[in-house]
Amino acid sequence: MASNNQTEIIAEPGKQELFIKREFEAPRELVFRAFTDAEMLVKWLGPCNMKMRIDKHEARAGGSYRYVHIDPAGNEYGFHGVSHEMLVPERLIRTFEFEGLPETGHVVLETARFEALPNDRTRVTIQSVFQSVADRDGMVQSGMEYGVKESHQMLDEFLAKQLVN
Amino acid sequence: MASNNQTEIIAEPGKQELFIKREFEAPRELVFRAFTDAEMLVKWLGPCNMKMRIDKHEARAGGSYRYVHIDPAGNEYGFHGVSHEMLVPERLIRTFEFEGLPETGHVVLETARFEALPNDRTRVTIQSVFQSVADRDGMVQSGMEYGVKESHQMLDEFLAKQLVN
Repeated sequence: MASNNQTEIIAEPGKQELFIKREFEAPRELVFRAFTDAEMLVKWLGPCNMKMRIDKHEARAGGSYRYVHIDPAGNEYGFHGVSHEMLVPERLIRTFEFEGLPETGHVVLETARFEALPNDRTRVTIQSVFQSVADRDGMVQSGMEYGVKESHQMLDEFLAKQLVN
Repeated sequence: MASNNQTEIIAEPGKQELFIKREFEAPRELVFRAFTDAEMLVKWLGPCNMKMRIDKHEARAGGSYRYVHIDPAGNEYGFHGVSHEMLVPERLIRTFEFEGLPETGHVVLETARFEALPNDRTRVTIQSVFQSVADRDGMVQSGMEYGVKESHQMLDEFLAKQLVN
């Protein structure tokens, strides 16, 4: 079942942050679990032509994670960070670093908020705060929009299957 | 021995970041240790009329920390976070949350850079990136400048003693 929900990416010119907003046809507890449970995450996170491998996933405040996306040619795209807060089922705060950049140390502070809507729907708002406007613009220009939208469509399908079962 | 080095706090209007810059009369390795070694930290961090207690201090990437400042009346001011990176002796990246705010979830991404200068001197530049301009302005208006400057004067004294011994 395809959903008509749209992923919105908001990056105001000159700011060092961006917002990703999306609604899902599933209750908040389930959407939150899909973002934090390793077995669920691998089923939807990332562009649909890539596989995902979870090297580390400590889903708790103070925990670390490292995820890898693998393209059809076998190239690996890793990213990692630490979890500052995991407030079930409403908020996640963590750091994020993409390992494919020319130098290390370009880190993002991510805050994901999960809001319960009427009719068992959920709104997810993710804020990413960057160390510079240039870092933010680089992320936007990297084609993140495409990957994020594909991810969310896969998450739609995953959630729909969970609700049927 | 008092130093003539000045603490500079730069908070451009309308931005969600601030920078703290300071030079110290000590080599980079020692200054870096003073920022990361628990026994050294308690001797200089915080306003000079407060005691400091370290509840947790895992000085490594993925480690957590919690520090408490205690004023003469016994009031406690806690803050905590997780370490994203510890690149000895040049860079620290971590989250920071002050526990005295009206609500939780207001988190800062801190990047501290340690630059070796001629004559065994060191420049420290700390960038704090906030989730909003309001959070940044709130921190500036809280009187942080006073506490930061006092801390750095105590660090001057601490470093001078280390170099004599």
